[in-house]
Amino acid sequence: MPPVYSPDALAPMDVAGRLPRLLERLDGAGCDALLVTKMENVRYLSGFTGSAGMLLVSPDGSLLVTDGRYRDQAAEQLAAAGAAGIELEVDSATAQPDALASVAARHARLGLEATSVTWSLQQRFASLFERSELVATRGLVERLRAVKDAGEIDRIEAACDVADVAIAQVKGMLAEGCTESQFAAELEAEMRRRGSSGASFETIVASGPNGAKPHARPTDRVVGAGELVVVDFGATVDGYRSDMTRTLCVGAPAGELARLVDAVYAAQRAGVRAVTDGVTGGEVDAACRGSLADAGYGEAFLHSTGHGVGLEIHELPAVAKDSADILGAGTVVTVEPGAYVAGIGGARIEDTVLVGTSGCRPLTKSTKDYTL
Amino acid sequence: MPPVYSPDALAPMDVAGRLPRLLERLDGAGCDALLVTKMENVRYLSGFTGSAGMLLVSPDGSLLVTDGRYRDQAAEQLAAAGAAGIELEVDSATAQPDALASVAARHARLGLEATSVTWSLQQRFASLFERSELVATRGLVERLRAVKDAGEIDRIEAACDVADVAIAQVKGMLAEGCTESQFAAELEAEMRRRGSSGASFETIVASGPNGAKPHARPTDRVVGAGELVVVDFGATVDGYRSDMTRTLCVGAPAGELARLVDAVYAAQRAGVRAVTDGVTGGEVDAACRGSLADAGYGEAFLHSTGHGVGLEIHELPAVAKDSADILGAGTVVTVEPGAYVAGIGGARIEDTVLVGTSGCRPLTKSTKDYTL
Repeated sequence: MPPVYSPDALAPMDVAGRLPRLLERLDGAGCDALLVTKMENVRYLSGFTGSAGMLLVSPDGSLLVTDGRYRDQAAEQLAAAGAAGIELEVDSATAQPDALASVAARHARLGLEATSVTWSLQQRFASLFERSELVATRGLVERLRAVKDAGEIDRIEAACDVADVAIAQVKGMLAEGCTESQFAAELEAEMRRRGSSGASFETIVASGPNGAKPHARPTDRVVGAGELVVVDFGATVDGYRSDMTRTLCVGAPAGELARLVDAVYAAQRAGVRAVTDGVTGGEVDAACRGSLADAGYGEAFLHSTGHGVGLEIHELPAVAKDSADILGAGTVVTVEPGAYVAGIGGARIEDTVLVGTSGCRPLTKSTKDYTL
Repeated sequence: MPPVYSPDALAPMDVAGRLPRLLERLDGAGCDALLVTKMENVRYLSGFTGSAGMLLVSPDGSLLVTDGRYRDQAAEQLAAAGAAGIELEVDSATAQPDALASVAARHARLGLEATSVTWSLQQRFASLFERSELVATRGLVERLRAVKDAGEIDRIEAACDVADVAIAQVKGMLAEGCTESQFAAELEAEMRRRGSSGASFETIVASGPNGAKPHARPTDRVVGAGELVVVDFGATVDGYRSDMTRTLCVGAPAGELARLVDAVYAAQRAGVRAVTDGVTGGEVDAACRGSLADAGYGEAFLHSTGHGVGLEIHELPAVAKDSADILGAGTVVTVEPGAYVAGIGGARIEDTVLVGTSGCRPLTKSTKDYTL
């Protein structure tokens, strides 16, 4: 069972081109420098994949500070990314704010990432940089990250391919009386064997009445015939994630369940058809929501239609009710309507799709047929 | 290959007793109510295991707000935990702060969790609760969490047992020419089969020169004979985590490596011997650091000695240089010195231990013999 993709065949990512694009936007955001504290953003801009550190970005040079665990790794990754003008300093976590102060103090307006920096760290910086104004920025790097380059798309698609192959490989288990937990375990193991570095989020396997909870954790419940089984899972390739949900059934869905899953399938098709360059997240959400309402399941759709996917499992753009986020060409989003009926069960169908200049291309490609 | 533990045999946790203990501490922290935004803390206090939500804690009643995905799950988990006086409200994420405002406005001094709440959310609450003073609290719930009850210890030990059994099962693979990634994949798969709900953090398998990076990600490098292989991994049982590192070798360690791994082993024993009720994290760190310095590897120890483990993989108390945190009876910490030599390799040995009234009891029990 070989990996589904070859790491060497993935297109290169343009890491070095990102910092200049961010620098162009600083003045418009009201700051002269930006302290990047969200690790996915640090990774995006510098290539450094460690779990802790901070990146100060400024037009006259940038500084990555991290701790001793990452001394060699950070130096190698900065060099490999070719991100020019990023210096490296290694300090303990408690000493890092002071290390940044000497560089940051040169700037009158220092941006912080308000939606991820903690209040505590903001207070610390406010006392350290008393001659600078701290500016609350929102989504500066996240908006750059929303539009993927060819290398990023390759990685997300490889993660989708891994998930497609893994579920095809293991789904027969469901007919053999396995539990939700056993199925989740084998699905994740198969993804690892096929090249995933880890599940892209906590795998959901929810059978029968458990399926009425959109985010149920796998239990020791044995999957029975005629039930719907919601399987929501993903792989990770070089930090990039996939996200897919399929609703499966051992035998034929009992009672109302066939109508339920068909309604969700129709809503998901309506959502995918609505995705194209320039549409808003709210419009795609409305397509799914309207389809489910027409089928009598409007009240049963308990969550948003989708979200961007990349280095984070939930990122921009938002595909939610009234979302004004634009789904531009090169963004990657999920379309995942569902319907949930307490005591009966639930269904959700989800693809990760790449938005194109005309329509979109699904990156997850598994059959939506619920039969095993 | 059955699960290593029986969920039914785990001691119950005293979830209901936690909120009263927190309420006793509010006034001392300078607040009348506390808005809990860190999800591990929400889980600890209420039993709710969802990925999003907020819990407002106050003497005259508490309120959990979460979104529609968790409507039924939250109601069931609150009831199961028996946490009296927690009401539930379901709202979209954007509407949740408003939902809290009507309750929070009754309190003059509203505590926020400064080390986890984002600056953006603090700003939002500052405008919503303009008649209340926002108080920056630090570690209020985390300090309660540091001391584990019998049910929590059972879960952490079950996660340790899973890890012990899994590595014993798969370590022979290393002698068969597998890659770091393949070994990580099979180790994680075996933990899932044995009852883990997922890796407790990103598994590290670092062989040969890669081992000189304390936090290396597994690569496609084939493990060779005579090299040290650092394997740092853990399981999760009912949200509680384990953390263990073993350094293994195919055949005998080449050159300096035998001396390196022996020095780390001696330092780890010194650290475990230093752990007892009332010792500080700094004293345990000094025991490991001194042992490695005596062996000539003082400069090669690039990180802290350890950390608390529980619902989070890194929590209180800190076992680090100069840490004044007390390791009280009932706390659970790691002891994990390491030595790293660029171009040569590295070694780390780590146990998760339960601090007792006299000494400590290792919860991870795998052999520290590096031979397979």
